[in-house]
Amino acid sequence: MDWKSELNECISRLAPDKVVYLTDSNVVRYLDIPEAIVVPAGEPSKSIAGLETVWQGLMRAGATRHSLLVNIGGGVVTDLGGFAAGTYKRGVRHINVPTTLLAMADAAIGGKTGIDYCGLKNEIGVFKMPERVIIDASWLDTLPQELLRDGLAEVVKTTMLGSAAMYDVLLDLPERLDADSLRGATEFSARFKEKVVAEDPTEQGLRRILNLGHTAGHAFESLAARCGHPVSHGEAVAHGLLVTLILSSRFAGMDPAAAGTYASRLLRRHYSPLPAGALDEEKLLELMARDKKNARYGEVSFVLLRAIGQPIREAVVIDKASLCETLRQYRSIMS
Amino acid sequence: MDWKSELNECISRLAPDKVVYLTDSNVVRYLDIPEAIVVPAGEPSKSIAGLETVWQGLMRAGATRHSLLVNIGGGVVTDLGGFAAGTYKRGVRHINVPTTLLAMADAAIGGKTGIDYCGLKNEIGVFKMPERVIIDASWLDTLPQELLRDGLAEVVKTTMLGSAAMYDVLLDLPERLDADSLRGATEFSARFKEKVVAEDPTEQGLRRILNLGHTAGHAFESLAARCGHPVSHGEAVAHGLLVTLILSSRFAGMDPAAAGTYASRLLRRHYSPLPAGALDEEKLLELMARDKKNARYGEVSFVLLRAIGQPIREAVVIDKASLCETLRQYRSIMS
Repeated sequence: MDWKSELNECISRLAPDKVVYLTDSNVVRYLDIPEAIVVPAGEPSKSIAGLETVWQGLMRAGATRHSLLVNIGGGVVTDLGGFAAGTYKRGVRHINVPTTLLAMADAAIGGKTGIDYCGLKNEIGVFKMPERVIIDASWLDTLPQELLRDGLAEVVKTTMLGSAAMYDVLLDLPERLDADSLRGATEFSARFKEKVVAEDPTEQGLRRILNLGHTAGHAFESLAARCGHPVSHGEAVAHGLLVTLILSSRFAGMDPAAAGTYASRLLRRHYSPLPAGALDEEKLLELMARDKKNARYGEVSFVLLRAIGQPIREAVVIDKASLCETLRQYRSIMS
Repeated sequence: MDWKSELNECISRLAPDKVVYLTDSNVVRYLDIPEAIVVPAGEPSKSIAGLETVWQGLMRAGATRHSLLVNIGGGVVTDLGGFAAGTYKRGVRHINVPTTLLAMADAAIGGKTGIDYCGLKNEIGVFKMPERVIIDASWLDTLPQELLRDGLAEVVKTTMLGSAAMYDVLLDLPERLDADSLRGATEFSARFKEKVVAEDPTEQGLRRILNLGHTAGHAFESLAARCGHPVSHGEAVAHGLLVTLILSSRFAGMDPAAAGTYASRLLRRHYSPLPAGALDEEKLLELMARDKKNARYGEVSFVLLRAIGQPIREAVVIDKASLCETLRQYRSIMS
């Protein structure tokens, strides 16, 4: 079903006294909506200024506690709109219509909302579940390849956690990504994340598996930025997933061939190698040790897989020597 | 137990990794605390600027998701601090130590937090329950009579809802209010409100009884402000409670003598008559009809009592003619 029909059906069911739309300056050109709150496209809208734009738009529209905010856009719009909806009159309902692959697979789902503050990402926000996240992969054809590759990493991550069959589909993706080839896996990813979040909305346990690939991924991302050759979040996570697969074959019984298959058919096909400066072993270890997701400072823990589609719920602590060997194996696979 | 001992006990139990204190420029002089975030006393601190002061104070203190914010002050501090706690890193725990009678009996309890925005009170906020509200009536001796009378109305309201015995204590209050005479009823009010809120945190049903006296009270408050003779919220509610008692005797079987007793022993002893301009029948009816708590526009509904301590859970709709008669009866009792 296309997003408009699904949205209309959802609005009928929720019966709000008023519907207010929020979008950004890029997405608004694709919309045929009489009136919308429009924020500038890009991360700076996740700010107090952006928040005030949405609050004032809601007030101007005469929104009450029984109204509905529909956020149509990427992660910036759904994070910002969700936070505004969570705080306007102490909470009005909202629906997310993600228009980027990253937002469909990740950002728009799960109720984490917020803005950046004093240079820190998502420092201020609330947990506020959307009434519905409407996934329509047709939006993907409005995006440049670069943004599709960025979002693909989260889709790959989710299928690795949730479905060996869907993961196999991704192994056969064409080099040039498009809506048709991504549709099935995108919908699967969104619904899988919804399911995980429903079981553990405030990240006390199960939800942690969604960090698959992110411990190493964040370290790569930080180090690449620090050495003056920044890479996108998706690119960093894509490389982090290879580290995870190697660790999983060493410590969780995963078939060792999986790492090679992933590297040749997904990682190398869609992503560039990391800049050399992002591979410094000592610095990577230090960054991973500081990851806020570790239970204890300095003890680096990872979400691992027994096999594709079979995550281990409890994070596994990996010692420094094993991590070094794993990073060396990563480099030999990538070289 | 005094508030410091109770707070220390509570902090031990919660075991936060850091404790941050928020207070205002009036209350800070009574505190013996090494460091605190201090906002200017008064309503303007319930603003984005006030919020940023608290967020930045939390950041400067290095507060994490496992830290604790302790709000020590009146309703402005507990509303603002609760909202900041509800949004900093998507939520850290908080404790309220109310220092005014109004905050002890009402504002600090129940998890409604927020700031004023674009001239509208509490327009932006979240529901965020404090871990604990620490009631120590000794604070009341730091307050001027005017503020005590303002808070007294909410204490009277709560005892009317919850305890005939406690209400009888209030009938004997000395004209000059102090901590000792108010201690029992204040503690009762706080715990009663906590109980009601625990049953109905988001105001779907039972919590509505806490609006006792507020339909007429808000109308008096608005009209008095409009005619250039503003009265305090507590003063307006105190008069609203008399209207409620009259309605209760007409429509809910309450002893008709109750209105007279209330007027002579509470209302006239502690509050001035309303300014003449705040008694315009037509305007009052119009204001009550627009109250956002009415189920349907134009249908004025009230929380009523069968007797002191026996509220009716369902709001009762009162027709216009009966309302007019009730207002006339109110005037004759007050004259």
